[in-house]
Amino acid sequence: MGKGNQTRALIIERSAPLFNKQGYAGTALSDLMKATGLEKGGIYRHFASKEELAAEAFDFAWAAAVRVRARGVEDEENAVDRLKLMVANFVELRAGLVPGGCPLLNTAIEADDGNAVLRERARRALHDWQSLLTRIARQGLKSGEIRKDVKPEELAGLIIAQLEGALMISRLNQSHLPLEWAKNHLTDYLETRVRAS
Amino acid sequence: MGKGNQTRALIIERSAPLFNKQGYAGTALSDLMKATGLEKGGIYRHFASKEELAAEAFDFAWAAAVRVRARGVEDEENAVDRLKLMVANFVELRAGLVPGGCPLLNTAIEADDGNAVLRERARRALHDWQSLLTRIARQGLKSGEIRKDVKPEELAGLIIAQLEGALMISRLNQSHLPLEWAKNHLTDYLETRVRAS
Repeated sequence: MGKGNQTRALIIERSAPLFNKQGYAGTALSDLMKATGLEKGGIYRHFASKEELAAEAFDFAWAAAVRVRARGVEDEENAVDRLKLMVANFVELRAGLVPGGCPLLNTAIEADDGNAVLRERARRALHDWQSLLTRIARQGLKSGEIRKDVKPEELAGLIIAQLEGALMISRLNQSHLPLEWAKNHLTDYLETRVRAS
Repeated sequence: MGKGNQTRALIIERSAPLFNKQGYAGTALSDLMKATGLEKGGIYRHFASKEELAAEAFDFAWAAAVRVRARGVEDEENAVDRLKLMVANFVELRAGLVPGGCPLLNTAIEADDGNAVLRERARRALHDWQSLLTRIARQGLKSGEIRKDVKPEELAGLIIAQLEGALMISRLNQSHLPLEWAKNHLTDYLETRVRAS
């Protein structure tokens, strides 16, 4: 990586927690300057706009989230166990994440009526996550590990909704309990209603 | 209501959709002036700060949400039917709501790492909603309508998390399906795992 690219990567890495915690509108240029130690010109030499930087910061934060949530999943052989591990990872693993909660949730809420570029990034992220879960469920259907009446896309949507909603409550109340409830509920659901007997 | 109070109420009513759609940081004074037809001085005669106006606008939007979600619930006699109706109301009723999605979800996400006054309002709103659902579940336990192994607070948390997460997905993807999935999932759960047989 050349020096220019190194600086660019550093700006993204240092601004990602700001955007994830404070939001796009809530992150001022002065915050970005403070976090990066650069002047305005030093930042905008690498990015056409705050929007472009925020989009790159989102991708950076999301990539970290996906890495953490998918940890060890490939090692599980059974489709239901894979889904259970993804649920557990979401609830239990924090190391390696960009601080501020789920980038998808944060950006979706801010951009659903707002910034089109960020909304598109959030949509793509949701689509990728949903596709991953759906794919696992389809494989499980095909292999007979998952009950025939399970609808893969719907199951993926339920898992994501339960986890993201629980994360909102947990963060607002500064309590891990709602996330634990979500994990127990989904685990029970996967065992009793999804796993083929 | 005196003229001053009327103007105050009008400012709250007209600014509530802005804050709910654009967020606190994303709503500029110029937006508020345009929506209310007032000058800066005309707005700040009634509110000490943008923060105070945003807090009042949140309460206004949240009161509307609670009214809609609780519609007809008192008429249901069975605790499980009450919970089912609250789920259905959340998913199906839009009329009477402040546009922009759930004020609790929007404010929780923006304020969880940010504005302390708004975070406190969101916390109180979540607490009230959770208490309402918990109370219904407790009554159902007492009357024998709900299974003895159900934990009221946990059930309330699961319902709220599922609905709020599904709303995030539905709004981001501009599809009603994830909300329908959540409704069907929760209805099935309430019938098969919560209702006493």
